Amino acid sequence: MLQEALKIISLPDLRKSLESDEIGEQIYKLITDLYPICRSITGDGVRETFKIIKNHIPLKVHEVSTGTEVFDWEVPKEWNIKDAYIKNSKGERIVDFQKSNLHVVNYSVAVNKVVPWEELKSHLFTLPDYPDRIPYRTSYYKESWGFCLSHNQLLAMQDAEYEVCIDSTLEPGYLSYGEYYLEGESQDEILISCHTCHPSLCNDNLSGIALATILAKYLSEVSSRRYSYRFIFIPGTIGSITWLALNEERVDRIKHGLVLTGVGDRGNFTYKKSRRGNAEIDRAVIHVLKHSGQEHQVIDFFPYGYDERQYCSPGFNLPVGCFMRSSHGQYSEYHTSADNLSFVQPQYLGESFSNCLSALYVLENNRTYLNQNPKCEPRLGKRGLYRQVGGHAEEQVDELALLWVLNLTDGEHTLLDIAERSQFSFDAIEKAANALAKHDLLKVKPE
Amino acid sequence: MLQEALKIISLPDLRKSLESDEIGEQIYKLITDLYPICRSITGDGVRETFKIIKNHIPLKVHEVSTGTEVFDWEVPKEWNIKDAYIKNSKGERIVDFQKSNLHVVNYSVAVNKVVPWEELKSHLFTLPDYPDRIPYRTSYYKESWGFCLSHNQLLAMQDAEYEVCIDSTLEPGYLSYGEYYLEGESQDEILISCHTCHPSLCNDNLSGIALATILAKYLSEVSSRRYSYRFIFIPGTIGSITWLALNEERVDRIKHGLVLTGVGDRGNFTYKKSRRGNAEIDRAVIHVLKHSGQEHQVIDFFPYGYDERQYCSPGFNLPVGCFMRSSHGQYSEYHTSADNLSFVQPQYLGESFSNCLSALYVLENNRTYLNQNPKCEPRLGKRGLYRQVGGHAEEQVDELALLWVLNLTDGEHTLLDIAERSQFSFDAIEKAANALAKHDLLKVKPE
Amino acid sequence: MLQEALKIISLPDLRKSLESDEIGEQIYKLITDLYPICRSITGDGVRETFKIIKNHIPLKVHEVSTGTEVFDWEVPKEWNIKDAYIKNSKGERIVDFQKSNLHVVNYSVAVNKVVPWEELKSHLFTLPDYPDRIPYRTSYYKESWGFCLSHNQLLAMQDAEYEVCIDSTLEPGYLSYGEYYLEGESQDEILISCHTCHPSLCNDNLSGIALATILAKYLSEVSSRRYSYRFIFIPGTIGSITWLALNEERVDRIKHGLVLTGVGDRGNFTYKKSRRGNAEIDRAVIHVLKHSGQEHQVIDFFPYGYDERQYCSPGFNLPVGCFMRSSHGQYSEYHTSADNLSFVQPQYLGESFSNCLSALYVLENNRTYLNQNPKCEPRLGKRGLYRQVGGHAEEQVDELALLWVLNLTDGEHTLLDIAERSQFSFDAIEKAANALAKHDLLKVKPE
Repeated sequence: MLQEALKIISLPDLRKSLESDEIGEQIYKLITDLYPICRSITGDGVRETFKIIKNHIPLKVHEVSTGTEVFDWEVPKEWNIKDAYIKNSKGERIVDFQKSNLHVVNYSVAVNKVVPWEELKSHLFTLPDYPDRIPYRTSYYKESWGFCLSHNQLLAMQDAEYEVCIDSTLEPGYLSYGEYYLEGESQDEILISCHTCHPSLCNDNLSGIALATILAKYLSEVSSRRYSYRFIFIPGTIGSITWLALNEERVDRIKHGLVLTGVGDRGNFTYKKSRRGNAEIDRAVIHVLKHSGQEHQVIDFFPYGYDERQYCSPGFNLPVGCFMRSSHGQYSEYHTSADNLSFVQPQYLGESFSNCLSALYVLENNRTYLNQNPKCEPRLGKRGLYRQVGGHAEEQVDELALLWVLNLTDGEHTLLDIAERSQFSFDAIEKAANALAKHDLLKVKPE
Repeated sequence: MLQEALKIISLPDLRKSLESDEIGEQIYKLITDLYPICRSITGDGVRETFKIIKNHIPLKVHEVSTGTEVFDWEVPKEWNIKDAYIKNSKGERIVDFQKSNLHVVNYSVAVNKVVPWEELKSHLFTLPDYPDRIPYRTSYYKESWGFCLSHNQLLAMQDAEYEVCIDSTLEPGYLSYGEYYLEGESQDEILISCHTCHPSLCNDNLSGIALATILAKYLSEVSSRRYSYRFIFIPGTIGSITWLALNEERVDRIKHGLVLTGVGDRGNFTYKKSRRGNAEIDRAVIHVLKHSGQEHQVIDFFPYGYDERQYCSPGFNLPVGCFMRSSHGQYSEYHTSADNLSFVQPQYLGESFSNCLSALYVLENNRTYLNQNPKCEPRLGKRGLYRQVGGHAEEQVDELALLWVLNLTDGEHTLLDIAERSQFSFDAIEKAANALAKHDLLKVKPE
Repeated sequence: MLQEALKIISLPDLRKSLESDEIGEQIYKLITDLYPICRSITGDGVRETFKIIKNHIPLKVHEVSTGTEVFDWEVPKEWNIKDAYIKNSKGERIVDFQKSNLHVVNYSVAVNKVVPWEELKSHLFTLPDYPDRIPYRTSYYKESWGFCLSHNQLLAMQDAEYEVCIDSTLEPGYLSYGEYYLEGESQDEILISCHTCHPSLCNDNLSGIALATILAKYLSEVSSRRYSYRFIFIPGTIGSITWLALNEERVDRIKHGLVLTGVGDRGNFTYKKSRRGNAEIDRAVIHVLKHSGQEHQVIDFFPYGYDERQYCSPGFNLPVGCFMRSSHGQYSEYHTSADNLSFVQPQYLGESFSNCLSALYVLENNRTYLNQNPKCEPRLGKRGLYRQVGGHAEEQVDELALLWVLNLTDGEHTLLDIAERSQFSFDAIEKAANALAKHDLLKVKPE
């Protein structure tokens, strides 16, 4: 299908069809399937997540042993949890992991005892400003335990002591990550990365996981791709560090990359540029957003956020940007139970898919051509590329786009360069280039 | 006279005298002489035009045979026309070439027959939004015939059939172009190009033709010029292509160039930059317009418009900009009978002359000097270049301009660079440089 | 004390303590001591000034003979004055040098005679717009005499003739200038220059002289300095020309420099950039002003003003900017008797000191570091550099500043580069760098 997109269907037509909620529904459905699972940076929740993804793409799962040294870090112990609760004096589960896996501070060590209220209090986390929401908290690198609950729940707690139980294990095991490699014509790679460590939170980051999965699925159906694609599904921070450490000798194949996160909410698109700031992926995404007609913002790289922090660390400095709708911390639902199945919607997911695909389309087709007739304009009319008196050109290609392509195919400009300078969309410029190439007026510049 | 301008008269004084309508009147008079002639991309109308121009400058006319291959094009057949009309049933000429040569679609093939209204309609072109005006249409590369008329004329046509006659020939012959070369101290050339293919249309482009002619005339009276000048009078598109094809080995002598068109209307000045965008001609014209005190706009190069399209094609990429008042398509009179002798006025033509001359003046005088006393400021006072207590400097040169020139004549800055950085006019900077050179404080940097 | 500032006390703390009026009072006190002296570009007033400065720093005084050739100039005759007055017919001193040394045109030759009013008039200078103020005038390079007086004084003069006396000498002698060199770890120098040629005028330039003196004093108490510092106290124009001529072979040691002038008034800070425009001194001062929270303006170099004209002449092009509060000619008190001891205030002088010191602090500490762990982020938590759940990091360093430093210490960025890109203050970035260096995560890049 994308093959058609890349070669036959025009991108505007493709995008139009995709903006129908069909793709968005597929992505949303996958989010729904993954939502109940309690994920963390390690453990069976991640493996269960990968099993569901495998229904769509043949993901390869890697298991890295606890204690493996990865640059300045080491792979942590594996965490698993079966149950957790706080019971009141009547034996009622007033905070219950079975109702929401956010109730337990992620990576809590096991506990099972009666504790006085005064002691318990320091293990409880709420959001007084949003008294209905359960916050999301973690304690990966300090062994402790705790519960997250709504502030209303906290206010209702009147007993002098409570029974607390966290039935978890924190033991040597593995860090699991998933990888899907799609071979293309070139060994040059496009990296798509998403973090898989959050439990029942939809926008951050089931939306990124599901978008990456469905994108991979459609790209796999394309019969030829210029680039190879590498999709990685990893826990945040420790996962990208682990992946980079284990694949250090291969990272220079990565020519472009995107971190996908928070792509399902109604907010405007946000693109955070790579550290390089003017990488081709940066220009491609910015171009697509600019011509999408949608409100969006472009922000400079800063060393905070998601796994782009690692990809863009100075020892790698990879051309990897971060594609989002609302950015982290900019919406009140962030890292709370309100980031749920109604916070993300098929329509927004579908738009995200469409813009990502368009950006990849730019990268796939962004070639440098050489005008074969560089001295003066060629005569377009005799080739049916120019409108006649009172008539129309045979091919529906914008004449000014043709002239821009002819004028700038001096070997110094890619099609994206031409699109940027002419203010035409990449689609229009590529269409013009194809029409000219068909008439042997252009040839791809040998690399 | 320009010699005086370049060497003796200060430019402000020269420009002041020129802004009197005297020069504008000369240009306007030439337009008036050329207005009745029916020009096209080939034919006797062009030759007649050149004959009149020869009253002012010794133009050399070149004739290029039909069929000559010029890059991707070939020189077309020659078109000539004696008469044309549409007669109604009473035998009255209701559309008459003798009244306006715009009435015939330029390059129409011969026709002489009675045609029913239904058939005739598809050969008629009007401007419903401007019912009094005759449009200007051409059909150079598709053999056909047609008439242009006012919409009011069309509405008055009630007969069932009409006699149509176009007494034209389209036969092997020649493309004629005119060239005037003015030798200067250097073989480096400044190209001035104007298109000569439009019939009775004043702004587009009798104004450019006449301005180029009068400019050439005055420049020829200057006894020494730094640059050589090449004025070419050519049909649009095919003419510049032909000239470039026949002069390919000489084009690298062209160091600066201007296409002149639409320089007679009351609109603000428009300068369209060369493809290079920061060529010296671009900076010179922009500087002159900025310091002219007149409203103007500067637009980036785009591959549409006039013969700059060919000069700036990637195989040549010459530093040629386009100097206009209102730009093509930005005024409703464009390519209609309303682009007539009252649409252009001596005053506006005179201003155009003045600004062009000022830009050439910048190019002629834009040298790089070397401060002969680069360590600390020289003592200006003892040379009479600095005001005394309660007194005045002997020479009326702006002190701050002197200091800017001294500060930036490090061999890295031309006078135009200094003018741009200091915000002084080129005139003031050049005057300061001359004063300093007179006192041996500056010398021209050897090339 | 500055040693503590540079190495122990944080700059914010130091600046806070300095913004107390203590330093400002010291500077103001020195201005008060210097105010009564009649200075000029040469003469005993300058020597007396240096004697007072020697109470603070061991200034070395140089005497350069009249007639010494210094580039295009020569050292002028030495001027000294004992007394001057205009007496009315009653023998009353109606204009009296003993009351204000501004009353005599600086460098007036001796005169002692009775002159008719008509003749006298042409030797009198007033400010009609500010009738209470005495203007400041000089006539260094044309031998003449004159008096400056308030316009009210002029209006009161009704006699037919007056006795005028100027008891001055203009004879071969010396130009005196002071120099104080503070050796640092490197022979690379920071130049601090101030002009000493103005008589009883406080802002221009006793403020610069006094700020330079007190700054030199504090810097001398620092036990180690990265840079050597050269403070020069010179007459304007002829002084910097003389110094440059006599020290030509040493000027390439000057890596950064500031001209200090007009630093005591209440106006906003003004920084005039060096001719280079992006020298490190320019960036350091602009950074400090930007983060000072104080209104300020940054202006481009232009070849007028103070001694930066000579330092930035094309044969030297030194990275020397000019640090001011209100800039010359932008305040009505400029070069009048209103530029007195109430026009400058300790508070403003203290702020100037503080900002200068901060800029020098940036230069002293602006190093390039290399991240020792450039592949992915290092684990800050295990080093106590990252906050824990519900806790705080052990060291009070901004986490985002740490991450910026880690991300940009690729050997291509100085700390100032990082501060500019991250929008953090230099102080915050340097603090982060120090914390990281302490944990061996950074090392200074070998030069």
